[in-house]
Amino acid sequence: MVKVGVVGGTGYAGAELLRILARHSEVELCAITSRKEAGAAVADRFAHLRGSVDLRFSDPGATDLSRCDVVFFATPRGIAMEQAPRLVEAGVRVIALGSDFRLKDLAEWQKWYGMPHRSPKLAEEAVYGLPEMNREQIRKARVVGTPGCYATVVQLGFLPLVEADVVDAGHLIADAKSGVSGAGRKAQLHILFSEAADNFKAYGLEGHRHLPEILQGLGGAARRQVAVTFIPHLTPMIRGIHATLYARLTREVDVQSLFERRFGQEPFVDVLPAGSQPDTRSVRGANECRMAVHRPGGGDMVVVLAVIDNLMKGASGQAVQCMNIMFGLPETKGLEMLALVP
Amino acid sequence: MVKVGVVGGTGYAGAELLRILARHSEVELCAITSRKEAGAAVADRFAHLRGSVDLRFSDPGATDLSRCDVVFFATPRGIAMEQAPRLVEAGVRVIALGSDFRLKDLAEWQKWYGMPHRSPKLAEEAVYGLPEMNREQIRKARVVGTPGCYATVVQLGFLPLVEADVVDAGHLIADAKSGVSGAGRKAQLHILFSEAADNFKAYGLEGHRHLPEILQGLGGAARRQVAVTFIPHLTPMIRGIHATLYARLTREVDVQSLFERRFGQEPFVDVLPAGSQPDTRSVRGANECRMAVHRPGGGDMVVVLAVIDNLMKGASGQAVQCMNIMFGLPETKGLEMLALVP
Amino acid sequence: MVKVGVVGGTGYAGAELLRILARHSEVELCAITSRKEAGAAVADRFAHLRGSVDLRFSDPGATDLSRCDVVFFATPRGIAMEQAPRLVEAGVRVIALGSDFRLKDLAEWQKWYGMPHRSPKLAEEAVYGLPEMNREQIRKARVVGTPGCYATVVQLGFLPLVEADVVDAGHLIADAKSGVSGAGRKAQLHILFSEAADNFKAYGLEGHRHLPEILQGLGGAARRQVAVTFIPHLTPMIRGIHATLYARLTREVDVQSLFERRFGQEPFVDVLPAGSQPDTRSVRGANECRMAVHRPGGGDMVVVLAVIDNLMKGASGQAVQCMNIMFGLPETKGLEMLALVP
Amino acid sequence: MVKVGVVGGTGYAGAELLRILARHSEVELCAITSRKEAGAAVADRFAHLRGSVDLRFSDPGATDLSRCDVVFFATPRGIAMEQAPRLVEAGVRVIALGSDFRLKDLAEWQKWYGMPHRSPKLAEEAVYGLPEMNREQIRKARVVGTPGCYATVVQLGFLPLVEADVVDAGHLIADAKSGVSGAGRKAQLHILFSEAADNFKAYGLEGHRHLPEILQGLGGAARRQVAVTFIPHLTPMIRGIHATLYARLTREVDVQSLFERRFGQEPFVDVLPAGSQPDTRSVRGANECRMAVHRPGGGDMVVVLAVIDNLMKGASGQAVQCMNIMFGLPETKGLEMLALVP
Repeated sequence: MVKVGVVGGTGYAGAELLRILARHSEVELCAITSRKEAGAAVADRFAHLRGSVDLRFSDPGATDLSRCDVVFFATPRGIAMEQAPRLVEAGVRVIALGSDFRLKDLAEWQKWYGMPHRSPKLAEEAVYGLPEMNREQIRKARVVGTPGCYATVVQLGFLPLVEADVVDAGHLIADAKSGVSGAGRKAQLHILFSEAADNFKAYGLEGHRHLPEILQGLGGAARRQVAVTFIPHLTPMIRGIHATLYARLTREVDVQSLFERRFGQEPFVDVLPAGSQPDTRSVRGANECRMAVHRPGGGDMVVVLAVIDNLMKGASGQAVQCMNIMFGLPETKGLEMLALVP
Repeated sequence: MVKVGVVGGTGYAGAELLRILARHSEVELCAITSRKEAGAAVADRFAHLRGSVDLRFSDPGATDLSRCDVVFFATPRGIAMEQAPRLVEAGVRVIALGSDFRLKDLAEWQKWYGMPHRSPKLAEEAVYGLPEMNREQIRKARVVGTPGCYATVVQLGFLPLVEADVVDAGHLIADAKSGVSGAGRKAQLHILFSEAADNFKAYGLEGHRHLPEILQGLGGAARRQVAVTFIPHLTPMIRGIHATLYARLTREVDVQSLFERRFGQEPFVDVLPAGSQPDTRSVRGANECRMAVHRPGGGDMVVVLAVIDNLMKGASGQAVQCMNIMFGLPETKGLEMLALVP
Repeated sequence: MVKVGVVGGTGYAGAELLRILARHSEVELCAITSRKEAGAAVADRFAHLRGSVDLRFSDPGATDLSRCDVVFFATPRGIAMEQAPRLVEAGVRVIALGSDFRLKDLAEWQKWYGMPHRSPKLAEEAVYGLPEMNREQIRKARVVGTPGCYATVVQLGFLPLVEADVVDAGHLIADAKSGVSGAGRKAQLHILFSEAADNFKAYGLEGHRHLPEILQGLGGAARRQVAVTFIPHLTPMIRGIHATLYARLTREVDVQSLFERRFGQEPFVDVLPAGSQPDTRSVRGANECRMAVHRPGGGDMVVVLAVIDNLMKGASGQAVQCMNIMFGLPETKGLEMLALVP
Repeated sequence: MVKVGVVGGTGYAGAELLRILARHSEVELCAITSRKEAGAAVADRFAHLRGSVDLRFSDPGATDLSRCDVVFFATPRGIAMEQAPRLVEAGVRVIALGSDFRLKDLAEWQKWYGMPHRSPKLAEEAVYGLPEMNREQIRKARVVGTPGCYATVVQLGFLPLVEADVVDAGHLIADAKSGVSGAGRKAQLHILFSEAADNFKAYGLEGHRHLPEILQGLGGAARRQVAVTFIPHLTPMIRGIHATLYARLTREVDVQSLFERRFGQEPFVDVLPAGSQPDTRSVRGANECRMAVHRPGGGDMVVVLAVIDNLMKGASGQAVQCMNIMFGLPETKGLEMLALVP
C-alpha cells in the first residue's frame, strides 16, 4: 500500500484526486490538508464522497506529511515549491499538480507567475509529468510537476508531428476550448452560471500561462524552438477540453499511421479511426486522451482534434498515472473508470 | 418624457432595467449610480448595451437624483429605505426593486432582514407593486416596493383561488423552481457554473425571505390568515421561474373559467387553454406571466403551473410596468418585447 | 462468472448497463442484441466504451440467449413479455428494465400501456425489483421487473412514512424533476437541446405511467389504498431526478430517526443529516439514493427531498443490484463507482 | 406597409422571422405557410407569440402569395428555387434564407447540395444578401439569397483583411463554434439535449456547405482565389456563433484602425476596442456582429474574434435587414432589440 497525503483537497483537482484515490486498491489515504476547512469532515464538504472517504481535513501546520510515501499538491502556485524541499529530504516523493515544477527556465517561470521561484534546485531536478513523453524519468523522480490541462492535450496532439519533423513548427496554431471547471473552484464573477452558461468566448489573448510549458515540451520534442499561437476559449460545459490543432505539412506523410504508431502502446491515448471526430463526452470522468487526425480537402494543412477531461488526464488522473509509474504499480491501476455517457 | 434615475445598475435587475429603459420611448435616462463602477461607461461593463446606453456610472454621493421624476432602486436591502425619504420630499417618486418597501409588518421585516427598518413612515405609505392586485394604489403612489420574483408568481397563481375562497388556504403548497440569475450577480461558490450546471437542488428549507410577502398578499386577498409551505429550488437555467402550486378545493368550481375571468383584462397575465403546460422559455425576456390550471385525475387537488422571467415580470419588467401606471403611460409601453425562443 | 446477455443495448439504459457490466468482475458479457445496429461494433457506436467492450451488436433473431445465466431487457414495452417465457423455460433468469413486469393488475397495465399483456403468468410471478422493499423475493426470482426511475425515488422517499402509518396517505404529493435522459435516446423534437436547454416545464399532467406502480408499491407498504398527486417536470440537466415529496403528519413522530432506522442497513440509500438538502450532482453516475427529511416551520407538513441518477439507481444500476442479489454476489459488486463531481 | 409572406414558418429561422416581423411597424404579415401545420394557429405552436401573432399556418398549395410585396423562404434547399420564378414574375420580391440563391457557380451548387438547380436564371440574377458587401445591389434586387450563418461571420471577420490585401489569403483558417440551434429544428439524435449538452465536438471535417459561399465572397473581395480551412464545432449553447479566424500578415498594417475604418458606418457591425474579447452573449437575440482583432505576442499572425447570433445576423435578422434596404426603410427598423443578457 502506498501511503498518500494530499495538500489542498478543496478545489476541483483535489476533490477529483479523492474520487480516484478512494477506490484505488493500492493506496492508503493518510491525510488531506486544508487551511480553511481544517477539522471538517471531507464527506461534509463533498457529499458524493459520503461513505467512501471518512477523513477530516487537517491543518497544514499540524499535519506530519513525512510519514507519507507520496504527497500530492493540488494547490495554487507557490505552495508546493515552499513545502516540497522538506518532504523530499524526508524521503517523501512529491507530485505537484500546480505550476511550481513545470518549467525549467526559472526566469520564464517568474515572468509568467509573478514571483521568484523558491526552490530552484528541485525545479531543476523535477520531471515534467507527461508519461507519454517522460515515462522513464517519472519512474525514478523524487519530484514530478504534472502538466497544465491545456498543455497536456496540445502537446499530445502535436507530438507525433513535431517529433517526426513533418510540419512547419514555427507556425503552429492551437485553438482550444475548455469547460468551466478548468477555471477552478473560486468565487469569481465571470464563471458564474449566469455568466458562463449559454455563452462562448475566447480569453487569454494577452498570453496564457500554459503556453511556456507547451513551447518547452514541443521544443524538446522537435529539438529546436517552436512557435504556437494558442487561443483558449471558455465553453459552457463543466468538464472537458477540445483542442483543434493546425499545422502545415512540410513533407508528405501518412498522418494516420504516424499517430497510430506513436501512441499504439499508450494505455491512455486513443487514436481514432481516420475520419473520426471525438467528442469531449467520450472522455468525461476518464483518464483518456482521444484524438483524430485530418487533412481537410486533402491539402497541406493537418488538423488534429484531441479531447481530454481537464480534471482527469488534464490533472488528477494524470497525477495518479504518474504515481502508479513511480511506485511500480500497473499504470492503469485505479484509473479503469469509463467515461460517463450521457 | 419621464426623467429616470437608477441606483445600483450593476446587478442583473439593474442591467435589465437599462435594457428596457434604453428602448422606452417615453423615458429619458438621466443617471445610473454605482459606488464601485463610478466613472466607467455602462457600455464597457455591459457589452450588449454598446451603442444604446452612453451614460457612465456616477458616484452615488455626487449624483443629484432630485432632478429625476422617478428613481429605481436595484439595490440590496437597506439602501432604498435610507435614501428614499429625501427623494420623496423633493417630489421624486421611488420604485424599489429590493425588499425595503414590501412588508407592512416591520417587526416581521426586521426578523427576516436582520436590521431595524430606517424609514417606517414610508414603509407604511408604500404600495406593494403587484399591478394585478394594487393597480389603483400604484397609480398614486409616491413609493412602490415591487414584489420578489417568487412572490410575484406564487401570488398570481394562487390569487383567483384564495380570492374566490374555494381552497383550503391553511395548507397551500408552492413548489418553485428558479433559474440561477435569481441568486444575483455575486461572486459566490454555489452559483458557479461548475456547481450549478447539470445539477438540481432545493434550498431555503429553513425559511425563504419571499415567504412573508406571499403570506401578506394572499392573506389580504383571502381576508384571513393563510399558510403556505414554500420550497424553492435551483434549476440549471439562467432566467425563469416555474411555480407548481397545490391547493385542495373546498367546494366545486370551474377553475379554468375562474382563472380566465380573473385575468381576462390583464395585459401581462396569460391563462393558457385547459390542458396546457407552460414552459419558462415562453416568457424568457418578456414581461409576462403564463399559467395553466389543472385538476389531475379530476380529484379535489388543484394544480396551478405558472411561469415568469424572474428578471422581467419578477423584477425589472414589473418595475417599469409600475412606472407606466404611475405616470399615466400605456401600461405596456416599452414592454412589448417578445420572449426569446429558442 | 455470471453469463450475461443484454437485449436492446442502444438506448441510454442499455449503454449504462454496458458501462457497469464492462467493469463488473463477476460478469462475462456474452451478447448484446440490437435489430438496427446488428453487426456494428458496440465501441463504434459508443466511443466511451472503446477498448473496454469488444462485442458487436448481434441480430436478435440470430442470437441464442439461452446459454446466458441472466438476460437484461433494456427495451420498450412489449419486447420482454414476448421473449421472457422461452428464456425462463430454458432456465435463464430475466431482468426487465422496461415496464412489462412491474404491475400485478394486468387490466391496469393494459390501460396505461395500450396493449394486452402477452405473458400474464410470468407477470404474476415476477418480482418488483426494488431491493429496499423486496430483497428476499428478488433473491429467488426467475423474473424481475425493475421500477421506473420516478417510481424508485418516489417510493423510497415515502416508504418510511406510509409503512409507519404516520401521514395522510390519501393526499400525498410528489413533485418530481427529471433530467432529459429520462426521456430516452429517441429523435423527438421536445427533447432537442434547443428546446430543452435553458427551459423548465411540467408534463404528464394527464397521467404518467409511473403512477400505477407507485400506487401499487406504496399501497402494499401501507396495507391500504393510497392516493398520490404526481407531477413530473423536465429540467435542463442530463441525468438525475429530484423528488420533492409532501405529506401531512397524522401523528407526532421524529421523522429523522424514522428514516435513519428504516434505511440504516441499506447499502444504496443514504439518509442525510437533519437540515440537509441533497443535490442531484451528488449521485450522478452512482447507484445511490440520497434523501433528507424536513418539517418546514415545524408544522404538520413533512417534506422529503430525495435524489437519484435516473440511469443508475433509477434503471441500470438498480438492475445490476438485483442481479447481484439473485446470484448471491455482494450487493455492491460492480456498483462501487463514486458520483462524478463536478 | 410592406405586405409580407413567409414560406416555412415552423423552423427556428421561421419562428425568429415572426418574432421580428410581429413588432416591425412597417410590416403587415399576410400569410405563413406550412404543409404539416396547415390550419393550426401560429400561437398554438409557438406559445411565445400568443397575443402577438394571430395568423394560422396556411397550406402552401392554397395560399396566394402573389398579393405580397415580399416573400421570405425559410425552407430547406429546393423549395425557394422551385417557387421563386412565379412570384418574381408576379412582381413579388423574394428573400431566401436557405441556400438556393447563394452560389453563382451552379455546378458547385449541385455538387454541394446534391440536386440540379431548377432556376438557373434567377440564381444568376440573385444578389447575395450580405449588406456590408452588397448593399447597393440588394436595394434593387428582385431575389436575395441571404448568407449561411457561418458564412456571415467568417466573411465579415476576414473582409477587411482580404480587401486590403494584407494577409496570405491562400492559407486562411476559420475555427468556428456554433450553438445547437444552427442545426435546425429537426428530430435528430445528435442534437438531443442528452447528446449535445455538456459536450463539445468538431464536425463537417469532410466539407461544410457554407465553405463554397465563403470562398465565393472572399474571393470576390480579394479579386482572386482564396483558400480557407474551415472547421465548425458544436458547442452546448442554444444561439450564437463564435468565429476565431487566423491569417498571416504579408505586410505591416494597423489592424485595429483597418477594421474600424471598414465598419465604422455599419449599423450592425461593432468593432470592439483593442484588447477586447467578445462573447456570444452580447449579441444573443440581436442583429449584430461584434468583433475584435488581435496580434498575439505581436507576431505576424492576426486573430479575429467575431460573434453573431446565428438566428439573427446569421439568418432572420439579416433577412429583415435586407428587406428594409429593398423597400427603402431605415435599415435598423424592427431590428432595434437589444441582446438578452444574462
